[in-house]
Amino acid sequence: MKPADFTLSAGPTQCSSRTLAAMGSPMVYHYDPAFLDTFRRAEEAAKQVLRTSADVLLLQGEAVLGLEAAGRAMVRPGMACLNLSSGPFGKGYGEWLRAWGAVVHEVEVPYDSAVDPADVERALRAHPEIELVAVVHSETPAGTLNPVQEIGPLAKAHGAVTIVDCVSSVGGMPFEPDAWQLDLCVAGAQKCLSGPPGVSIVSVSADAWALVAKNPDAPRYSFLSLLDWKHSRLEGGRFPYTPSVGDVHGLLACLEQLLEEGHEASFARHARAARACRRGATAAGLRLWPRSEAIMSTCTTSIATPEGLTDAQVQAHVRERYGVMLSGGHGAGNLMRIGHMGVTADTMYPVVGLAALLRALADLGVPVDIGAGLDAALRVLSDAAEVPA
Amino acid sequence: MKPADFTLSAGPTQCSSRTLAAMGSPMVYHYDPAFLDTFRRAEEAAKQVLRTSADVLLLQGEAVLGLEAAGRAMVRPGMACLNLSSGPFGKGYGEWLRAWGAVVHEVEVPYDSAVDPADVERALRAHPEIELVAVVHSETPAGTLNPVQEIGPLAKAHGAVTIVDCVSSVGGMPFEPDAWQLDLCVAGAQKCLSGPPGVSIVSVSADAWALVAKNPDAPRYSFLSLLDWKHSRLEGGRFPYTPSVGDVHGLLACLEQLLEEGHEASFARHARAARACRRGATAAGLRLWPRSEAIMSTCTTSIATPEGLTDAQVQAHVRERYGVMLSGGHGAGNLMRIGHMGVTADTMYPVVGLAALLRALADLGVPVDIGAGLDAALRVLSDAAEVPA
Amino acid sequence: MKPADFTLSAGPTQCSSRTLAAMGSPMVYHYDPAFLDTFRRAEEAAKQVLRTSADVLLLQGEAVLGLEAAGRAMVRPGMACLNLSSGPFGKGYGEWLRAWGAVVHEVEVPYDSAVDPADVERALRAHPEIELVAVVHSETPAGTLNPVQEIGPLAKAHGAVTIVDCVSSVGGMPFEPDAWQLDLCVAGAQKCLSGPPGVSIVSVSADAWALVAKNPDAPRYSFLSLLDWKHSRLEGGRFPYTPSVGDVHGLLACLEQLLEEGHEASFARHARAARACRRGATAAGLRLWPRSEAIMSTCTTSIATPEGLTDAQVQAHVRERYGVMLSGGHGAGNLMRIGHMGVTADTMYPVVGLAALLRALADLGVPVDIGAGLDAALRVLSDAAEVPA
Amino acid sequence: MKPADFTLSAGPTQCSSRTLAAMGSPMVYHYDPAFLDTFRRAEEAAKQVLRTSADVLLLQGEAVLGLEAAGRAMVRPGMACLNLSSGPFGKGYGEWLRAWGAVVHEVEVPYDSAVDPADVERALRAHPEIELVAVVHSETPAGTLNPVQEIGPLAKAHGAVTIVDCVSSVGGMPFEPDAWQLDLCVAGAQKCLSGPPGVSIVSVSADAWALVAKNPDAPRYSFLSLLDWKHSRLEGGRFPYTPSVGDVHGLLACLEQLLEEGHEASFARHARAARACRRGATAAGLRLWPRSEAIMSTCTTSIATPEGLTDAQVQAHVRERYGVMLSGGHGAGNLMRIGHMGVTADTMYPVVGLAALLRALADLGVPVDIGAGLDAALRVLSDAAEVPA
Repeated sequence: MKPADFTLSAGPTQCSSRTLAAMGSPMVYHYDPAFLDTFRRAEEAAKQVLRTSADVLLLQGEAVLGLEAAGRAMVRPGMACLNLSSGPFGKGYGEWLRAWGAVVHEVEVPYDSAVDPADVERALRAHPEIELVAVVHSETPAGTLNPVQEIGPLAKAHGAVTIVDCVSSVGGMPFEPDAWQLDLCVAGAQKCLSGPPGVSIVSVSADAWALVAKNPDAPRYSFLSLLDWKHSRLEGGRFPYTPSVGDVHGLLACLEQLLEEGHEASFARHARAARACRRGATAAGLRLWPRSEAIMSTCTTSIATPEGLTDAQVQAHVRERYGVMLSGGHGAGNLMRIGHMGVTADTMYPVVGLAALLRALADLGVPVDIGAGLDAALRVLSDAAEVPA
Repeated sequence: MKPADFTLSAGPTQCSSRTLAAMGSPMVYHYDPAFLDTFRRAEEAAKQVLRTSADVLLLQGEAVLGLEAAGRAMVRPGMACLNLSSGPFGKGYGEWLRAWGAVVHEVEVPYDSAVDPADVERALRAHPEIELVAVVHSETPAGTLNPVQEIGPLAKAHGAVTIVDCVSSVGGMPFEPDAWQLDLCVAGAQKCLSGPPGVSIVSVSADAWALVAKNPDAPRYSFLSLLDWKHSRLEGGRFPYTPSVGDVHGLLACLEQLLEEGHEASFARHARAARACRRGATAAGLRLWPRSEAIMSTCTTSIATPEGLTDAQVQAHVRERYGVMLSGGHGAGNLMRIGHMGVTADTMYPVVGLAALLRALADLGVPVDIGAGLDAALRVLSDAAEVPA
Repeated sequence: MKPADFTLSAGPTQCSSRTLAAMGSPMVYHYDPAFLDTFRRAEEAAKQVLRTSADVLLLQGEAVLGLEAAGRAMVRPGMACLNLSSGPFGKGYGEWLRAWGAVVHEVEVPYDSAVDPADVERALRAHPEIELVAVVHSETPAGTLNPVQEIGPLAKAHGAVTIVDCVSSVGGMPFEPDAWQLDLCVAGAQKCLSGPPGVSIVSVSADAWALVAKNPDAPRYSFLSLLDWKHSRLEGGRFPYTPSVGDVHGLLACLEQLLEEGHEASFARHARAARACRRGATAAGLRLWPRSEAIMSTCTTSIATPEGLTDAQVQAHVRERYGVMLSGGHGAGNLMRIGHMGVTADTMYPVVGLAALLRALADLGVPVDIGAGLDAALRVLSDAAEVPA
Repeated sequence: MKPADFTLSAGPTQCSSRTLAAMGSPMVYHYDPAFLDTFRRAEEAAKQVLRTSADVLLLQGEAVLGLEAAGRAMVRPGMACLNLSSGPFGKGYGEWLRAWGAVVHEVEVPYDSAVDPADVERALRAHPEIELVAVVHSETPAGTLNPVQEIGPLAKAHGAVTIVDCVSSVGGMPFEPDAWQLDLCVAGAQKCLSGPPGVSIVSVSADAWALVAKNPDAPRYSFLSLLDWKHSRLEGGRFPYTPSVGDVHGLLACLEQLLEEGHEASFARHARAARACRRGATAAGLRLWPRSEAIMSTCTTSIATPEGLTDAQVQAHVRERYGVMLSGGHGAGNLMRIGHMGVTADTMYPVVGLAALLRALADLGVPVDIGAGLDAALRVLSDAAEVPA
């Protein structure tokens, strides 16, 4: 069975041919000096991509591994945590915190909204015992963004450590762990970096390590252990287990491409693609899912599925008839998402996603103005001062 | 420098990942039994793709090698030939015939037209001494089609051998050497087969071999020799020189994919893509280059460049600003070509080419109705009974 | 830095170009119907490769993930377990069992030996409360084999569930979960299957599921959860998280190659390579590490490092001067291992490993008879009735 | 059918994974600015690899295309040429010269010998009218080397232009067109450069261009035309036809790798591999084909096939039983050739070739001392001061 001609999902997304070639390059033994060198370079590149001075570890599993391992390393039973929930991933993290025995305070907003820093401040004031604040930067399923640049300093001032899910923001929009005083950040490669999904990038600040140190039950000798990787990579130990060689090769390749392009150029590219998609969608008569443009994440354009249809139905039609893979709401609601991430946040990809979605909706009986939508999207691409390389 | 995100040129065109993997598979010695087997399978697959019972040879160079080698093998000084010219490739073949010493009669039509079989019949009657008729099936630079299905039987009835350039038709539209009584056909892989450009596929009928046999100066021991390859592949000889291993691997892969899909499915796919592009272009207010739809080749949509612009200018703008590689007129006139060949004759590729071209023309001051154009193109894709796999 | 020209380690080992091409094939969304189809086919192929009628799950991490997830799913605090230790992996599993709260009984033998089924029987008789028996089939670090074909029936007769580490045996030597009454088997792809290291293949019998059912604390909603994958793949749920797309592509490819070749042909190939290496090593004057040939695993040839040298020293010399990557003892002792796994268990690879090792030892002052060793190894390859394809 | 595990032929030879990835990278339109850039960079890299200040053209076919095109461009009917023949390629060039109408004088030596510059000098003195001297630097089929460093200056002093076949020498041994006053040099990529076979690298000095200018019949508008490429690449024209995109990508990659490694490092690597093979072969009791070590080319080790056997027979046995592809004499005589070219002129590859050959000869009844041979080869690899990277 043939994959979609265009993978414009919310991730994994299309990879560059260079990244794919790296993933398919010859297998090497994990203690081959060449692989040790590759691994070290991937760590260094990840650090530069995250723009952090903190320690960076590469865990060998999709970003949820990093998120779980980081939480388990820090959370002690009875510890007070503040969970910020504006979407399925934020919501889920609260469930994890509870499962690990934490006393969880929560700021919750609907899945088309973003967390208000004032609420965070209030919660921290009300609970001086809070030691950890968990927040998702870019809530991929909803296509929304939380103001972690304001939440980080609030938490730091309070003396709490932050754990931040930046899986779908890194590489595609500003994210500054050091400037924003964020402690433990977990990124993935399969979103705005156009890399493989099998690796978690975890940055850990000194404050985060201090919190880990307070946890006598932080896992060791486990696939879920952050400390095993600390021992391995920061204290001269051996690998806790065999790394995913192909994914590490792919990760280094996609990180190097981001660094060669430059963060700002990539951010501008993602913003332009997002703007084109959004202008197009609204010009066609559709409603964007997030309540305001200010809280939209540039990684996807989230569009409310029109009345009478389900996202699954639209997604299947787009895939079958037009060979384009989009994403649905994935737990955030009845919405469609056009991914513009990594290599697909460029040139005509936004038009492909929008055209397929609009025509599919028309097929399914929704009155959309396809011409107006695509015209508006193309106008944005044309107006952009920046010209794709 | 990054290649175009979308190569929608008139060829070479995008290859499938399977074909690319074949091109990049390990290099082998040309007398490795595995390569000998690959080469034989490529010949057999080429024969099936061409739907011919004639001999099929694979020359190791772009299709112009096959066209030149075939001509030099057959043409004797003073021999009467009929050359049919409806575009730059047809025109050029006449020049080659003259250079090789033939007495050339010619039916010439403007480059937006097709040869009329009645003119061919007339010319053959006027010159009973004509031994060879040269004709281009699909004139790629103009995007037009000559009625070789009628010309073949005329030539055969006359007793003349035909040499047919089917480089851009094979795989993308009906082409039947046996049924149409065509003698020597030269195809390439880089057009509707989505393969590598470095190999010529040459089918040779018994009548064509008989004409070669009459030519004492048919090249031997030369890169241009058809007889060397006959000796090598049909008479048990060794390779005249080292074949282009990577291109042969890629050729076999793309031929196998065509055979797995089936000729008719591929033709329908190309026709649908062409129809979408054409409806879109005209709905946007553009003029198609060929005089009538009946003579349009489905491999490209050829569009007259609007007044005041040159094809080179439009092509450069589309490439720079929108990351899409289209073709210009390539000697056929001031026209733009959107290729829909092989893998790009599918799903949203025609929309990508059309959107980029329309927006570029708008940027350059041409009043085009982008919305109407794309809406019309998408309507065709939607209406198509066939759903892309 | 250039990887070794020859990766003859104890895994990851070299992959075929077909497997590498699969790993580097275009990234797809994990809910693309084409990927869902790939995943299902990989599960089915894994089941055939394991020759089991039990359920097969693919966990998204190196085989230690499967081993840990399986153990955590089954082991309850206070539960009596029998751990069989004949090498570092067996030893380590006992530590895991203890960490998870089990009451651990143990049969331990030196790392150059294999577990005696009589000892297992004795231990089971002495502790009728034992519910789980943990055993490693092929102890990769030592290059030894435990008689799981006898241990399985003993455990089954006793009413205990077996968990078997068959990471380095599957594909390279007989392994029959059903016939041998083994319950939960964990395999990896990076050894005798010549696949990527990032995926665990886990087969689970009805008895194993019954033991999991008795464990109210079997992890859910965790990277370590076997039940999440049961829910996902056997009960119609969604993926617990994004699978490692590239590794799944590679896994399917290597499994298909094994099935195309046939189990017995692959076993014979591995056995021949092992025999060549062993005869060569002893003819050169070296001592094989395992106490007897009967307990040698065919995945590696384990050779005692000669007096006065360390395995790390020899390994580094072989890699630097001869471009060959071998493995050392990895916790099992001072030994060198030449891997002959998957694609490297064929043709001249054993000679490469042996020649590099012998010459390196000579360089380091060990009196070895290089000529005699290589001559003996080549004699085995020549004598073999089977001819490599 | 599976290709050989080890391609140690006389070319095409194994490519690096980087070169293969380049060959399999996405297809691009030949007028895509990115491809134009690639092509220009390949020309520049080829110039650096050839170490010449002359013009360098890349013809789109295996090196015999370059050799034929160059000759046809320069040779006029009746022109006096001196052909130097010490092997099948030299011999064949004389036949070409005659076929093109030249008056051919010849210095011929047996195929296990090299041309003596004194004979060249004598011939030039005897025939002051000689305008062209044709010579093969490295006669691949025989594994011998002609002293072009002495022949070049002789020809230049005489006022004759030289055409030099350096297909199997460039990259693997010293070759200095400028210092040696060589005029027209034709190289290929599939030998010591470990690249694809589909491209000819042709360097043309001012004197060579002057000779072309004297030839009114130098081909134009032909696949065989050097002038078409001159027009295209040196005078601002368009490509005469579509280049072999995949091979150009592969060519650039392999040239860049040679330049990164450095000429001298590569020469040393080739020399070491050749020395190992030769010492091994003679220690085993075999006779090297060339009359003296001084005239051996480092690209292959040529070994006289022992009495009673044919090279084809040995080659087939080595391939079938040991998965290694060697070359036979290819017209030079009854000899076996172990290629050590490009990536295979390194680490254990020479041992692989030698071991397979020796064991095969033993299988076929030849009394060879396998142990002594391999021991001697490994001793050379060990002694080498240089350590492979």
